[in-house]
Amino acid sequence: MPKKVDHEARRREIAQALWRIASTRGLDGAGLRDVAAEAGISLGRLQHYFRTKDAMLAFALRHINALADRRIRDRIEALDGEPTPREVLRTCLIGMLPLDDRSRTGALVGAAYFVRAVHDADLRAEAKNGIPHLRDFFTGQLRRAADRGELPPARATDDEAMLLISLADGLSTYLLLEVHTQEQALRLLDLHLGQLFEGEARE
Amino acid sequence: MPKKVDHEARRREIAQALWRIASTRGLDGAGLRDVAAEAGISLGRLQHYFRTKDAMLAFALRHINALADRRIRDRIEALDGEPTPREVLRTCLIGMLPLDDRSRTGALVGAAYFVRAVHDADLRAEAKNGIPHLRDFFTGQLRRAADRGELPPARATDDEAMLLISLADGLSTYLLLEVHTQEQALRLLDLHLGQLFEGEARE
Repeated sequence: MPKKVDHEARRREIAQALWRIASTRGLDGAGLRDVAAEAGISLGRLQHYFRTKDAMLAFALRHINALADRRIRDRIEALDGEPTPREVLRTCLIGMLPLDDRSRTGALVGAAYFVRAVHDADLRAEAKNGIPHLRDFFTGQLRRAADRGELPPARATDDEAMLLISLADGLSTYLLLEVHTQEQALRLLDLHLGQLFEGEARE
Repeated sequence: MPKKVDHEARRREIAQALWRIASTRGLDGAGLRDVAAEAGISLGRLQHYFRTKDAMLAFALRHINALADRRIRDRIEALDGEPTPREVLRTCLIGMLPLDDRSRTGALVGAAYFVRAVHDADLRAEAKNGIPHLRDFFTGQLRRAADRGELPPARATDDEAMLLISLADGLSTYLLLEVHTQEQALRLLDLHLGQLFEGEARE
């Protein structure tokens, strides 16, 4: 099905043009016409793929999230030996922070998207779409840590998982605003993880 | 100096018009012309007070932050008797969350502003302006708790203060996206505070 593959590739090229705009000047300046110009195609051709700005944004967000997912999975697979649940969680959380160009672009697109999503139920559904899945994955790692005697069973909960995810989100904001340096953000993350896991010794 | 007072009042009216736009459809649609129309004044008159969109945004953000500050101070003063440091911190953190119309508007304006600030050093300086002060206040409360034997001294640090602030920011995002209900956000906040303060018994 070469035709279908081409369509998908073209959609991704358009999404990348959108990211270039969003990560340098935000989504204010990212109308369909601007994105078409950035992608080097006509407005009519872009509208063949995305009829509205919101449809284009939803695709771009899904695609950038899928890339982030893949990047984090690759990093987990690259961990030496059999990684502990704590190592897996730390790798995920660091992967969620804007610490390099690609994750910074993802965070900027996500933030620009977030502002629109607050006012639009469909976009909001898309923006929060992956979170229950991520929470379940985190809770699963916490349960695995509890089974291995590395975490008090009482702390292997959905709430502890959401606390980690909420913290990563707050740290991302302050990294983008340059309130935290990279070193500070990692130190705060490790402080929280230390208290979560090392609570065990004190039970 | 009645003239100066009038100017200040007019600037606040313009800021409120900006918030009404920002909290319903974001800052995409908030050009100087739109804000002038919402405030019921001419573009020329608005430009007498704010020459650029960024100057207007900076004033509006400072003003909404000052109102939030005042609201939180009032709530702390309304606490019964001599509030404990933990009660003061909890009251501040809850005041930072978008749990009612006014704080929701503040969070929405802040979020819209944030997206612009990431691309602009002057706006970024403004956006992160109050954070060291807030951190110092939080650290002071943690030290007071340690002095009272309510917190291990090792946890009365700037890093613990920034962890609390970062968490409030992440929880705000997820409240606006309706990932968390108000009850869930408060539960997560209390979970973190509990682990911070109740760690003491386990030392």
